[in-house]
Amino acid sequence: MTSLEPPFTSVAIVGLGLIGGSVALGIRERWPGVRIVGVDRAAVLAHAADTIDRGVESISEIGEPDLVVLAAPVRQNVALLAELATRRLRQETVVTDVGGTKRDIVEAARQASPCLTFVGGHPIGGAERGGFSFAHPKLFDGRPWILTPDADTSLRALAAVEALARGLGARPTTMSAAEHDRLMAFVSHLPQLTASALMHVAGASTSGSGLRLAGRGLVDTTRLASSPADVWVDICGSNADAIGEALDHLISRLMKLRADLKRGEVVAETFVDAAHWRNELMKGRD
Amino acid sequence: MTSLEPPFTSVAIVGLGLIGGSVALGIRERWPGVRIVGVDRAAVLAHAADTIDRGVESISEIGEPDLVVLAAPVRQNVALLAELATRRLRQETVVTDVGGTKRDIVEAARQASPCLTFVGGHPIGGAERGGFSFAHPKLFDGRPWILTPDADTSLRALAAVEALARGLGARPTTMSAAEHDRLMAFVSHLPQLTASALMHVAGASTSGSGLRLAGRGLVDTTRLASSPADVWVDICGSNADAIGEALDHLISRLMKLRADLKRGEVVAETFVDAAHWRNELMKGRD
Repeated sequence: MTSLEPPFTSVAIVGLGLIGGSVALGIRERWPGVRIVGVDRAAVLAHAADTIDRGVESISEIGEPDLVVLAAPVRQNVALLAELATRRLRQETVVTDVGGTKRDIVEAARQASPCLTFVGGHPIGGAERGGFSFAHPKLFDGRPWILTPDADTSLRALAAVEALARGLGARPTTMSAAEHDRLMAFVSHLPQLTASALMHVAGASTSGSGLRLAGRGLVDTTRLASSPADVWVDICGSNADAIGEALDHLISRLMKLRADLKRGEVVAETFVDAAHWRNELMKGRD
Repeated sequence: MTSLEPPFTSVAIVGLGLIGGSVALGIRERWPGVRIVGVDRAAVLAHAADTIDRGVESISEIGEPDLVVLAAPVRQNVALLAELATRRLRQETVVTDVGGTKRDIVEAARQASPCLTFVGGHPIGGAERGGFSFAHPKLFDGRPWILTPDADTSLRALAAVEALARGLGARPTTMSAAEHDRLMAFVSHLPQLTASALMHVAGASTSGSGLRLAGRGLVDTTRLASSPADVWVDICGSNADAIGEALDHLISRLMKLRADLKRGEVVAETFVDAAHWRNELMKGRD
């Protein structure tokens, strides 16, 4: 890789959790000269002190960065965007986010336009543990980073956020916010709800002594059940229609299995189809 | 650990897949002097040639072992047990199995009694890939090995199978076949059906291009979807009532989530409860 010039000289990162923290660490490693302002609670700022140049507790104190990265839970990002729009940032300042849903914030940015230059983003590099202590500069390495520009997005703003994504090792790809939200409902939000529901049912029905006899299958299938609640309450609120559709698909699939079981007819096809899609999922991964 | 005398001098293992193959490898490592007869198709026997002393393609050719381990899919094990019962094995020969359901085979053994000395067993050490090539002598290390004796089981037979489990590093524990099947419906069979259903829905709804944008969450949650179909068709057939009950619990939990979404009210409790049970599940694990 040729050495990339940093696409910005100063950045404000709002929310130094797993994703925001990893963005900060990645920028620090890739472009040591970029000035990083972190916005979070005092305890988190103390934890991130070696990574950021300056920590503030309110978005009103970020000064005049070239780039603002909103990395709070998704509905907070929407509120923060509205607050930024009233702040009269410089015309050149690009605002992006890293949230798991895109329609809400893209719509909020459209309403704030032209007071704000925004490109929605979503790096696919999550893990089940939130918080700065799990952040890692390589979290996005080789992973997709979805950008959701619309017709009003400037090429300059899009190029800046693409350069951020590439600089952190990710592969930027673009689609509409609606397409993003429908896709993520199936491949990200539905797995989360499924893991949480399964963990709840297995735990409540067998109690702790039963769980001690569970094998690796339950352990893997429910890994996401440790995910931070606040992040997921927000995502559910912000993508309810698409997640609802995905849930309907899963419920009807499980009801078909239920009917098959009752007739004594669970057929190999169920498992063969699933194994086929699992193969597709694993193509090109470790 | 003090060196254990082998609880048997010769063993026949019927089915050299992941579990049967791992039993063979474990016995070979723990008690090198024990004679192992493997029963499987010729291609599998060729693959296992270094591990077993003799390979045969039919259970009628196993000779007079001290111990028979049935390690085929569960409904085949039931048929094999019936076949063994007609064979007039020596009174001292103990028969056990390693299948994921227990009521069917325990009932078959009860009907075959007193022609057969049987103790049902289920080592919890599965993985998503079947076949001898994934077998490993340490597969059961530190894991539970559930035994399901009933009122007619002899102490001698129970002690022999417990010694096998301990010799392979597992922790034997006993419960009734009914208790086993209900518990496994929730902590093993339900996760399998859920992973397969989720993988099917995510794959069919987004296609391969969508799956390329999935993160680690979907990858982990659907790992079980690669499991061998024949094993699971058998388990579903053999534990349909208990799996059906577990599926009912999951479906109703998902429908509650669906209703919460529609009202715009997915609450943190859903995720907090699941995280609590996930913590319970992970206690004492790596």
